Amino acid sequence: MKAKGCLQINLLRILENYRAFSAAAKPDVWMAAVVKDNAYGLGAVQVANVLYRTGNCFTFFVAHAFEGHEVRAVAPKAAIYVLQGPDEDCMDFFIKDNLIPVISSPMQLDFWNQAAPQSHPVALMIETGLNRLGFREAELLALSPKERNRFHLVLSHLACADEPNHPMNEKQLSTFQKLTALFPKAKFSLSASDGFLLGEKYHFDVVRLGAVLYGINPIKDAEIQSRNVIRLTAPVIQVAKVNAGDFIGYGAAYQVKEKGKIAIVSIGYGDGVFRSFFPNGKVWFEKEGERFAAPLVGRVSMDNLICDVSHIPKEVLSACPEAVLVDDAYTVDDFGADAGTIGYEALSALGHGIRFKREYIK
Amino acid sequence: MKAKGCLQINLLRILENYRAFSAAAKPDVWMAAVVKDNAYGLGAVQVANVLYRTGNCFTFFVAHAFEGHEVRAVAPKAAIYVLQGPDEDCMDFFIKDNLIPVISSPMQLDFWNQAAPQSHPVALMIETGLNRLGFREAELLALSPKERNRFHLVLSHLACADEPNHPMNEKQLSTFQKLTALFPKAKFSLSASDGFLLGEKYHFDVVRLGAVLYGINPIKDAEIQSRNVIRLTAPVIQVAKVNAGDFIGYGAAYQVKEKGKIAIVSIGYGDGVFRSFFPNGKVWFEKEGERFAAPLVGRVSMDNLICDVSHIPKEVLSACPEAVLVDDAYTVDDFGADAGTIGYEALSALGHGIRFKREYIK
Repeated sequence: MKAKGCLQINLLRILENYRAFSAAAKPDVWMAAVVKDNAYGLGAVQVANVLYRTGNCFTFFVAHAFEGHEVRAVAPKAAIYVLQGPDEDCMDFFIKDNLIPVISSPMQLDFWNQAAPQSHPVALMIETGLNRLGFREAELLALSPKERNRFHLVLSHLACADEPNHPMNEKQLSTFQKLTALFPKAKFSLSASDGFLLGEKYHFDVVRLGAVLYGINPIKDAEIQSRNVIRLTAPVIQVAKVNAGDFIGYGAAYQVKEKGKIAIVSIGYGDGVFRSFFPNGKVWFEKEGERFAAPLVGRVSMDNLICDVSHIPKEVLSACPEAVLVDDAYTVDDFGADAGTIGYEALSALGHGIRFKREYIK
Repeated sequence: MKAKGCLQINLLRILENYRAFSAAAKPDVWMAAVVKDNAYGLGAVQVANVLYRTGNCFTFFVAHAFEGHEVRAVAPKAAIYVLQGPDEDCMDFFIKDNLIPVISSPMQLDFWNQAAPQSHPVALMIETGLNRLGFREAELLALSPKERNRFHLVLSHLACADEPNHPMNEKQLSTFQKLTALFPKAKFSLSASDGFLLGEKYHFDVVRLGAVLYGINPIKDAEIQSRNVIRLTAPVIQVAKVNAGDFIGYGAAYQVKEKGKIAIVSIGYGDGVFRSFFPNGKVWFEKEGERFAAPLVGRVSMDNLICDVSHIPKEVLSACPEAVLVDDAYTVDDFGADAGTIGYEALSALGHGIRFKREYIK
């Protein structure tokens, strides 16, 4: 009888995904791994370790310098880029761990010039249509050619790459081509996972693979598919009968239509299962290859969710079984969609869970 | 120039909230503190420590045994109840730390009877209308009087206590009164924060204060109000101009109406700021008591959000300011509402953030 869930993280699958996407690029494209947000919650150190040692991945992207510091410990010779740029609280990490800040604004460049040696490598983010971080055209033109040549890597980021036919893609591509002409000595990087799938002209020198390493498929029917890398389960701690007319859960937001059975599963929004997972979410029960859906009934609470198991055979439920929340057949993309969001956010939220066991397959 | 946010947690306010609500109860009601889910993300050890040492709180509720183990270290003589009940992986914690399992199902009782000494204290959850965890009436009646007398505390949980006029409240109260007659020797607990606010007849022997300790007000205009306990800020790392017709953020989901200015704030859904915070969310800028709202423009991304700062005076924004996400004037309840959820889930999600600095006021 257990009370806590278990998150299994398949590092070999992450490695497979890395290899499958790398194999689809020309050999001179560097395939970098995005391990920010603790590798979307799956463990930046574990992920970087396997990609560096077994996958020959030598380029990593993190969001914050402290994340780069953690990755440095397992990837001593890798190039590690810090996407959120300099941070006065973490200058030691940049210098001692040789982390490369991605400079996104003139404000960041000014700060960096005051705080770090001129010889320290720097990368530059430029804005091409996302209207998020990055130097705007006028700001680029305000830099002298010598200043521009400091940046060995120039990046931008696509806004709509998960919609292959969105006109924004071509528009950003052509803006990127125009603006990178200002950097005759740099290498270039425009695409993350979704941009990579738009085809070779979006690859440039460095591709930043994040989502697809972790089983997220930003483009549903893309030619190369990322394979799911996690299995999240949680124990049933009670099975109970309900009658027609009964209410279930907070706010009495669900009313039972006909006599049946519910199971209380020991996982909730405190573990990253969004409250918005009700009413469309479901969990799964399995026995010897057979698989049964148990739709959520009643709002998700902090520590528990409630599902309808009326139609699930007794022998499947008996002996204190576990409910499957995410696996190969119901991926983080499916889970996210049923919660009204995207696989990225779903994985990140679940990955922040500290109340289930973690098991690494390696 | 910073890149990371900062979460300030005011332990003195938590203590004040505990005292304010305790003062509103009769002296013989035990006011317990719910510190599950790492005290809704704010630090179970820190919160339990101040409530135990300074607040004279001697009863704590956690969800899982490992959480109880952490609390035990700072509250050596407290009664610590584990709401999710026994767990075969954590029996050591129950025994060595003298944690009291809340038994919610016959299945859990069977397991516990096999796994732990008969003399170990146990509590019982009974079901009165939430249709979540708890013994159903028939299951209670199947216990012998001797078995029932093992439980020194009998609990239930209200479904609709945040709606004072909801008929479910009276219904659950009367069911609880009826069923607890089966336990002549036990103490009783029906209410969490919201139930406490329904009035004295809902108090019984033990009240489980959770939400109101942390600045959440489950009932908007209740007589006693919980005061906000956190301040979450994140740095602006870029300010940029936008023109009418420009698109902002992923999916080009926001189009600029008139020429203006945006700020990119270094915090995102990887830090617990739900994607659903767009389109209704806003962040705040302050200078010398003046306060300006900056509505979100464009989807929240993993590491950043984008807000409209067109109408915010230059001197407020200059010198790399910080945006306020949550504070006394825009609490987790406000934040949650603008994200389409409740303060509980918002606080828990932000509280799981590992990428901002934490500062405790104590």
